[in-house]
Amino acid sequence: MLIVMKKGATEESIQNVVEAAEKRGYTARPIPGGDRVSIGILYNKGSVDAGRFMGLEGVKEVIPVTKPYKLVSREFKNENSVIKVGNVCFGNGSMPIIAGPCAVESQEQAITIAKAVKKAGAAMFRGGAFKPRTSPYDFQGLGKKGLEILANVREETGLPFATEVMDIESFDLVEEYSDVIQIGTRNMQNFSLLKRAGRAKKPIILKRGMSAMLQEWLMAAEYIMEEGNSQVILCERGIRTFVRHSRNTLDLSAVTEVKKESHLPVIVDPSHAAGVRDQVIPLACASVAVGSDGLMVEVHHKPEEAMSDGAQSLYPEQFEKLMQMVNKIHSITGCASF
Amino acid sequence: MLIVMKKGATEESIQNVVEAAEKRGYTARPIPGGDRVSIGILYNKGSVDAGRFMGLEGVKEVIPVTKPYKLVSREFKNENSVIKVGNVCFGNGSMPIIAGPCAVESQEQAITIAKAVKKAGAAMFRGGAFKPRTSPYDFQGLGKKGLEILANVREETGLPFATEVMDIESFDLVEEYSDVIQIGTRNMQNFSLLKRAGRAKKPIILKRGMSAMLQEWLMAAEYIMEEGNSQVILCERGIRTFVRHSRNTLDLSAVTEVKKESHLPVIVDPSHAAGVRDQVIPLACASVAVGSDGLMVEVHHKPEEAMSDGAQSLYPEQFEKLMQMVNKIHSITGCASF
Amino acid sequence: MLIVMKKGATEESIQNVVEAAEKRGYTARPIPGGDRVSIGILYNKGSVDAGRFMGLEGVKEVIPVTKPYKLVSREFKNENSVIKVGNVCFGNGSMPIIAGPCAVESQEQAITIAKAVKKAGAAMFRGGAFKPRTSPYDFQGLGKKGLEILANVREETGLPFATEVMDIESFDLVEEYSDVIQIGTRNMQNFSLLKRAGRAKKPIILKRGMSAMLQEWLMAAEYIMEEGNSQVILCERGIRTFVRHSRNTLDLSAVTEVKKESHLPVIVDPSHAAGVRDQVIPLACASVAVGSDGLMVEVHHKPEEAMSDGAQSLYPEQFEKLMQMVNKIHSITGCASF
Amino acid sequence: MLIVMKKGATEESIQNVVEAAEKRGYTARPIPGGDRVSIGILYNKGSVDAGRFMGLEGVKEVIPVTKPYKLVSREFKNENSVIKVGNVCFGNGSMPIIAGPCAVESQEQAITIAKAVKKAGAAMFRGGAFKPRTSPYDFQGLGKKGLEILANVREETGLPFATEVMDIESFDLVEEYSDVIQIGTRNMQNFSLLKRAGRAKKPIILKRGMSAMLQEWLMAAEYIMEEGNSQVILCERGIRTFVRHSRNTLDLSAVTEVKKESHLPVIVDPSHAAGVRDQVIPLACASVAVGSDGLMVEVHHKPEEAMSDGAQSLYPEQFEKLMQMVNKIHSITGCASF
Repeated sequence: MLIVMKKGATEESIQNVVEAAEKRGYTARPIPGGDRVSIGILYNKGSVDAGRFMGLEGVKEVIPVTKPYKLVSREFKNENSVIKVGNVCFGNGSMPIIAGPCAVESQEQAITIAKAVKKAGAAMFRGGAFKPRTSPYDFQGLGKKGLEILANVREETGLPFATEVMDIESFDLVEEYSDVIQIGTRNMQNFSLLKRAGRAKKPIILKRGMSAMLQEWLMAAEYIMEEGNSQVILCERGIRTFVRHSRNTLDLSAVTEVKKESHLPVIVDPSHAAGVRDQVIPLACASVAVGSDGLMVEVHHKPEEAMSDGAQSLYPEQFEKLMQMVNKIHSITGCASF
Repeated sequence: MLIVMKKGATEESIQNVVEAAEKRGYTARPIPGGDRVSIGILYNKGSVDAGRFMGLEGVKEVIPVTKPYKLVSREFKNENSVIKVGNVCFGNGSMPIIAGPCAVESQEQAITIAKAVKKAGAAMFRGGAFKPRTSPYDFQGLGKKGLEILANVREETGLPFATEVMDIESFDLVEEYSDVIQIGTRNMQNFSLLKRAGRAKKPIILKRGMSAMLQEWLMAAEYIMEEGNSQVILCERGIRTFVRHSRNTLDLSAVTEVKKESHLPVIVDPSHAAGVRDQVIPLACASVAVGSDGLMVEVHHKPEEAMSDGAQSLYPEQFEKLMQMVNKIHSITGCASF
Repeated sequence: MLIVMKKGATEESIQNVVEAAEKRGYTARPIPGGDRVSIGILYNKGSVDAGRFMGLEGVKEVIPVTKPYKLVSREFKNENSVIKVGNVCFGNGSMPIIAGPCAVESQEQAITIAKAVKKAGAAMFRGGAFKPRTSPYDFQGLGKKGLEILANVREETGLPFATEVMDIESFDLVEEYSDVIQIGTRNMQNFSLLKRAGRAKKPIILKRGMSAMLQEWLMAAEYIMEEGNSQVILCERGIRTFVRHSRNTLDLSAVTEVKKESHLPVIVDPSHAAGVRDQVIPLACASVAVGSDGLMVEVHHKPEEAMSDGAQSLYPEQFEKLMQMVNKIHSITGCASF
Repeated sequence: MLIVMKKGATEESIQNVVEAAEKRGYTARPIPGGDRVSIGILYNKGSVDAGRFMGLEGVKEVIPVTKPYKLVSREFKNENSVIKVGNVCFGNGSMPIIAGPCAVESQEQAITIAKAVKKAGAAMFRGGAFKPRTSPYDFQGLGKKGLEILANVREETGLPFATEVMDIESFDLVEEYSDVIQIGTRNMQNFSLLKRAGRAKKPIILKRGMSAMLQEWLMAAEYIMEEGNSQVILCERGIRTFVRHSRNTLDLSAVTEVKKESHLPVIVDPSHAAGVRDQVIPLACASVAVGSDGLMVEVHHKPEEAMSDGAQSLYPEQFEKLMQMVNKIHSITGCASF
């Protein structure tokens, strides 16, 4: 941490800051500059609360220097983490695609879509049994019945599946049935849920919050890892911006930065970023090109009858095309280290 | 809902949209324009999923028209809702101020601050026992011990208190102790928690999510009301923008719009929006001037030693000044109907 | 500037950074920390381009410390600048209100509105002769004819006026007629125009760009001051955010921060921030309460017939009410130093 | 345009809106819904100002329906526009890359970089002679001398070049020397400059404003086309968001949407979006994968000595790698129609 003093701050006020730091066990080192003095705070373990210095006489600004995350950091573990789900690997240079409907609606719907995406080359199935919906009047998912359908689909197709968990109450149930547990955008900083996920035995897909800074997202993963579960897959799904031509704005530089800062794999969900079908294939191609470790895509055989997010679901034949494009692009960029 | 067809959409594709709507029980009415045809979807109950029409041949755009909320809407209930907490009223034209530290740290800390804010005129006390923190390594609150301290403070000062609930596990406990239950920014769309809040017997302060649209915020309140709890106080606390000179950007036009759209009271938390002490009093004054139904302010007698959010906490003597300013401004704007 | 080295950066790479800095005449001082070394760059005049260090071996991050502005800075000039326009003062603790239509449409329109706002207590008139419009097909202003009307209005009412300049071609003309020259949001970083404004003999109102950081806005003012014109009034008018319930989001903490960082007066335009009439009076009250040095408000006697921005223009009787509220609030907050 | 009336709006107020519309020559058609009446405004030429209806009794909301642009619209011209610069084509399915330094610094610097990028396969050179800089104290470009250097480079390498124009004063000069004239982000709504560009005989690269909505960007292009110059290349370069891990957030769905709405070619500048070198190649790959019609990339042989934007400039050997990756990806996605 660097404390920048006002121009003309007195020697006494500088000394006062130094003492405040040392009282807390830090080392404080004043650095005289041209116009003003700065004070470096050294040897701190964990983050130092800026508030402890902001109020002191003569202090102009407090600038944090070191990043507070540990277990998720590439400085902590240099080689890529590979997360395995059955035979599917995330983070080993392959390009696993998770595909399926937004919500499980019926056995027939699920199995129809699962067979279609499997045939096109998807590695995993997805489908919501518990659905977070903006309105209490919208379809909230089939619950346990949905999980049973997903299990049946797995048995029939051999595809492992990912499904979202919304609360601790239903966590045991979701953990029992699913192969990968998804924590959604709106729960990225539901810290109680993150702690529970940290005690789960299954891998976690952690979606980025709609307005999460990179550091907040990685700290959310840190919550999970700190409780003992190191099988975390990050998922970029678009951020909230002023833009209105897509539901959210896909932040692809986040993929690049996550891979620089962390050893965890990061996948992309172009469907939720786009919000409209036309953008999904182009954004999927871009996500693979930028270096994503996988994709999560919404597919529905009758999107105009889907109970949620129909507008962004691909038709099965579009998904086939996506798979072809994505595989070709990955064959080029997959072995490149940017 | 209005479905806008592409220029030159065929008669057949228009007919196809009409049929798709009618198959779902809606009334569809084509409206020929100069350049293109639009189709109004009428008599729908609840929201209509745009996805059901986006994929159809010839459709250019789907524009939602009616707002989906009901119970929170001023169209549903025209007069202001007044939420009572003991003798304190929100929404009746008074200006109740909730003040206290970010986190309860000790009996002594809490009682010292409570006495100071009571003396200055605060109507309620606040303090966190369960703290949502970005980092798992930061102070997470005293938990039940914190609630007991808050109860002691209430007994000693007579001030009712608000405190945050983070999950369903601790909900019963928080509900038992507190006078008002706060749902924080990061949990605004934790729908399971909202539903539990809807079954609580205590009033709820629902903070706006950091990137929540007005409609999403009101729909979150709708979740609570729909489960049976109509005692909801909304709280604007700043939104995430590109700005870096404050932690968040206080969105005061949201206060005006909430009061137009809804009968629920809306208060403002200038401390979290600001993130730095210097901005808190000016933003508090602005919040009262814009028509807020109350304020929530962080105060600490030793902010440089606070265990969280010290940088934004007012000193007690600053809070006194805030109270004086705020009361004077409220005496002017409080009886005005803009 | 602070250069943060990666964990485990070699002694050689550190020495390399030090040499790179010293080759450019700076002083570089390595600061060993717990985990990593940082290097302070001292005695630099002007800003140091981060790019010069980002590419060097072992460098993790480059953090700018000092702000690059000079003439606009309160560190450069401590007392408030007072900008005079005839008898009207900005920055001396008074609360001058500039009011008028978005665009001058006719002599009759202008004079009608000017008389109404003067009667209500406005200190200055406003009206656009050259109009920046999103669409080339929208009304572009009356041009020179508009300036003549504004001059007539000034003669008849005694009100000085502000009007926008859009380019260097028309600058002489606008400067000749107007009392204050406005540079609009979309031109905040039109550096050629800023330089011309710096050679003007009239005060400049510099509106904040729609997505301008505080520092960019102050640097735009620095362009004007650096060319010799120190009569700059800053104007906050809302920023672009994800919000849809107002045209822009009024950033009132910017007022507080500008006054801390700079000696220049700062006023607020609530009309453009709101975009809808209902929000204008509340936001005007909030702007005065937060410590603004004045307001700029759109008024039209027949807003439903206005040739631009009718939706946000107040009726004259609403403006009267605004004046009353604003004056009362200013009597409370005007003499407070937050 | 659709005017939504409040619940319970009287027959009289509905009639009043209809009359107001008809007085202006529009056709107004009331559409009764379940809860409320909406009124469609038809047969309007050009956009209808919402303000004309917002203030009327009983009006709840005014929703624009048709897009206001004409000449840029794909509804106006269905086939892709191909813009030619010498032998280089934008919009015909090829993948031209424009590369070079941010600013021209010297003949030697320019020629060194030009030769390197030509060798790697760049189709055009870029370099700034007039530089828009946030600070008046930063390097402002070599001006006319810079243009002469660019012309020399063209002669020596055969590469046509693009360079930015900042104002009307220097427009003739820039037009005389350059092959393509660039209008920068900060000038996207400098309408006077756009009109001058509309009278130019050279193609224009129109960069997207940092917070421009798609519609505003296309309307800026409309300004140029409306004055007679139909050779417009749009350039996405990142938008301002809350994100801090990149300078701006590259909005790749804008590429998809521009191509849907308009016949104009759209290229991407990953360098300015990234702001840091590490992200440039991945974002360039993503831009090609999403369907861009070309790229604009910053390259410098000694970025640590560059006079501006060194941090985001690629080394020549990195640019070579970019060219290889980009060409391979384009060979896959270039012939796909998403």
